Amino acid sequence: MRAFFIGRFQPYHLGHHEVLREIFSEVEEVVIGIGSAQESHTIENPFTAGERVMMVDRAVGELMAEVGERKVYIIPLEDVYRNSLWVSHVVSMTPYFNVVYSNNPLVIRLFREAGFEVRKTKLFNRVSYQGTEIRRRMICGERWEDLVPRPVVEVIEGIDGVKRLRDIAGTDV
Amino acid sequence: MRAFFIGRFQPYHLGHHEVLREIFSEVEEVVIGIGSAQESHTIENPFTAGERVMMVDRAVGELMAEVGERKVYIIPLEDVYRNSLWVSHVVSMTPYFNVVYSNNPLVIRLFREAGFEVRKTKLFNRVSYQGTEIRRRMICGERWEDLVPRPVVEVIEGIDGVKRLRDIAGTDV
Amino acid sequence: MRAFFIGRFQPYHLGHHEVLREIFSEVEEVVIGIGSAQESHTIENPFTAGERVMMVDRAVGELMAEVGERKVYIIPLEDVYRNSLWVSHVVSMTPYFNVVYSNNPLVIRLFREAGFEVRKTKLFNRVSYQGTEIRRRMICGERWEDLVPRPVVEVIEGIDGVKRLRDIAGTDV
Amino acid sequence: MRAFFIGRFQPYHLGHHEVLREIFSEVEEVVIGIGSAQESHTIENPFTAGERVMMVDRAVGELMAEVGERKVYIIPLEDVYRNSLWVSHVVSMTPYFNVVYSNNPLVIRLFREAGFEVRKTKLFNRVSYQGTEIRRRMICGERWEDLVPRPVVEVIEGIDGVKRLRDIAGTDV
Amino acid sequence: MRAFFIGRFQPYHLGHHEVLREIFSEVEEVVIGIGSAQESHTIENPFTAGERVMMVDRAVGELMAEVGERKVYIIPLEDVYRNSLWVSHVVSMTPYFNVVYSNNPLVIRLFREAGFEVRKTKLFNRVSYQGTEIRRRMICGERWEDLVPRPVVEVIEGIDGVKRLRDIAGTDV
Amino acid sequence: MRAFFIGRFQPYHLGHHEVLREIFSEVEEVVIGIGSAQESHTIENPFTAGERVMMVDRAVGELMAEVGERKVYIIPLEDVYRNSLWVSHVVSMTPYFNVVYSNNPLVIRLFREAGFEVRKTKLFNRVSYQGTEIRRRMICGERWEDLVPRPVVEVIEGIDGVKRLRDIAGTDV
Repeated sequence: MRAFFIGRFQPYHLGHHEVLREIFSEVEEVVIGIGSAQESHTIENPFTAGERVMMVDRAVGELMAEVGERKVYIIPLEDVYRNSLWVSHVVSMTPYFNVVYSNNPLVIRLFREAGFEVRKTKLFNRVSYQGTEIRRRMICGERWEDLVPRPVVEVIEGIDGVKRLRDIAGTDV
Repeated sequence: MRAFFIGRFQPYHLGHHEVLREIFSEVEEVVIGIGSAQESHTIENPFTAGERVMMVDRAVGELMAEVGERKVYIIPLEDVYRNSLWVSHVVSMTPYFNVVYSNNPLVIRLFREAGFEVRKTKLFNRVSYQGTEIRRRMICGERWEDLVPRPVVEVIEGIDGVKRLRDIAGTDV
Repeated sequence: MRAFFIGRFQPYHLGHHEVLREIFSEVEEVVIGIGSAQESHTIENPFTAGERVMMVDRAVGELMAEVGERKVYIIPLEDVYRNSLWVSHVVSMTPYFNVVYSNNPLVIRLFREAGFEVRKTKLFNRVSYQGTEIRRRMICGERWEDLVPRPVVEVIEGIDGVKRLRDIAGTDV
Repeated sequence: MRAFFIGRFQPYHLGHHEVLREIFSEVEEVVIGIGSAQESHTIENPFTAGERVMMVDRAVGELMAEVGERKVYIIPLEDVYRNSLWVSHVVSMTPYFNVVYSNNPLVIRLFREAGFEVRKTKLFNRVSYQGTEIRRRMICGERWEDLVPRPVVEVIEGIDGVKRLRDIAGTDV
Repeated sequence: MRAFFIGRFQPYHLGHHEVLREIFSEVEEVVIGIGSAQESHTIENPFTAGERVMMVDRAVGELMAEVGERKVYIIPLEDVYRNSLWVSHVVSMTPYFNVVYSNNPLVIRLFREAGFEVRKTKLFNRVSYQGTEIRRRMICGERWEDLVPRPVVEVIEGIDGVKRLRDIAGTDV
Repeated sequence: MRAFFIGRFQPYHLGHHEVLREIFSEVEEVVIGIGSAQESHTIENPFTAGERVMMVDRAVGELMAEVGERKVYIIPLEDVYRNSLWVSHVVSMTPYFNVVYSNNPLVIRLFREAGFEVRKTKLFNRVSYQGTEIRRRMICGERWEDLVPRPVVEVIEGIDGVKRLRDIAGTDV
């Protein structure tokens, strides 16, 4: 069985990590879609798709060291800006999958209309484990490193990602 | 060191296989771009990006059984239809890479203009190891299975790919 | 004489109905444009263009039972995201028309700049006869059926439209 | 039961007419899609979508005078340039339909992959009843009027359509 | 040496004028990019790219009467909606330049990531010399003419620009 | 009076030069549109819009040294891929113009349909003064410098343009 899971991963954080751990406990293979892949260098979407591929890849590596080897496909997905085409877009860009994991009402609705089985994921500490909160902390110079897996911290430091976000936000100007 | 290698992989064939074997002999990590990812269901581009991800993944698996484990990223890349933006597009969608392998004059030129190191790949039996020839054989009902790695045959059979190509070509109508 | 009238019809409501009744009293033929045709499955635009074609068609049928047979063309119009091209876009997608009916300042301005006669429509009970209010009632489980023509209720029930809107809004999750 | 039938209608000709007559003998309602709606003013696609709506509408009127009143929806459909999204695009832009009529291998394949019933249409005098041949005759100043229904001749004359085609082809320059 | 300077110029005002005077004191040639060139007829972007070319051209003419003849290229730049492609887009559309002048954090960041020298411009009376304030005054019927160079007033009057903005804002309806 | 003249200028050659000389003899101001501005690095369109702006600017400079100072606007124009929108696109991107000079049947037709005065330009030695022939000579290593104005040779040499074209064509590989 193969699952589909999508996020924007701006950045990948411990909430994503818990969901993936949950998915790994139920299915063998996972396609991870990187949503809004065309976006970067904004306050909402500071990181490129390629940088987010790295984050997801490193985080999945950590997870597999813990739960055992899995087959994972990491696929950047550009927006198509038309909800009625979105499921077909995802399907065409990804290896075949049987089940979708999501907590997003629109994602759930669109996949169910298309006849897919959708499983709702659990929520983990939604206050902190959110991209918005993490990016806010990065901009304000607060501590964000505890909210993401260790390998993601390394990816972000490797690209000097906090500096980029602060530059764009005008904080460092 | 990380290399970038791009193809349309319609389908992945033994020519691609030889180039990858060559790249694996020189660098540790490879980003494989799946070009014209948005195309499918045409005579020139019968397979979806997701199906081509499967072909490349299975073929790379075979290769790694032979040459040892490597880090490989397989990234679908939609066309941007503007040569002057193409390298920036590739860079934004992929993990960082240091060197490009290609035999395509346009790809070579664009990456060199952008300051990348580009290495030309060797050519292997160009008459048969070509997507055009393989698709022609599929349409005409000739033997094509010898021109692609064994796992790619399985992927194509699993999606009944020859039937799709013949349908589109009007051969089965 | 042929008139042009455009709306998003999310959903078609009694305000639209009154405007059409007014137009039918002045001209013989009407082109009804379905704006933002590419949008669907959002809180602002829950229904597809095709579903909105059905709403308009059924409502116009009711109206013609009342005022007599008219020639009506119902044309979905995708956004072009450039105001300076919009009139040309509309003109290319629709049968020729001589006069535009609208109350939207931008629509009026764009058609007048292009040399069209534009007639302002009357306003009918703008508090309730608004898409925003109707969608709000649908989401909150309040009574909305009195604000749209009877055949439109049937179209929306036929596609289980309120459920879709509530799903997307997260009300049913 | 409602059928879907698509053509570019550059222009609508007697071949289309025969297919529609055939469809009307089997189903009560028809959605007629006007393909490549965004195209106009080229040798392959001289007429705008709006002009083609008029041709189809008039021709259907003639047909209904003959076979009795039917419910027909005429919907311009812009290209999406991605085969994997095309069926979803059509579905979103049109009233719900149960069966597709087509002789085009790609259209047949795409709708069948999406789970639709597709019925192949008969072919009627394919040598003359073709858009290419009719446009060639228009450009060369030969007799084309016998190849299209009478009301279509009137629409084309009303917009001075042959002059446009000859202008674009450079014949009149 | 050739500089690049970009603005939306909705409209061109005395703040832009001061920055250009500053740039002219340092470099001989300037490429002036007209950003969001595809936008017009909105409250944020009332003027077309062509109208803004006229404003910039006339204002630059006034400036050169003061500081002497310079080589200036005025280039409309449509948005590409992808920050990672934007610098490549600008570079492809403009004559070669060596240095960028900007106060916009995103513009500064993107050009620096691409390896360009970027110089921050001074700020001049930011309260009044802002497009937002000038458009507000136009809509409210207040005095705006002191905030733009005299030739820009003439361009805006020549196209009856205040009337357009008020029409769109619904103020004149 | 202000004229509009459009070309792709791949590269600007003596045929364009003669047409401009003709236009300058009749009108005072000229808007020169650089068509297919988004194209570059292909055999048909080797040069970027910015490089073509330079060619046109330098060539116009030479011409004005001969016929006297004129007001000229050089505007890159991206394709919109829809003939029915093209005139509106051009109008929105350029300063106002009263008359169009062209020998292209489609350009003539589209502007005339939109109500513009169009004047046909003379033809000058069409065998050699063609972009296709000049690019062929560049690729084949033949003499092309006599077919373009001297300043255009300098622009092309300054960007090593022949090398780029030969690289793309695969001649130098």
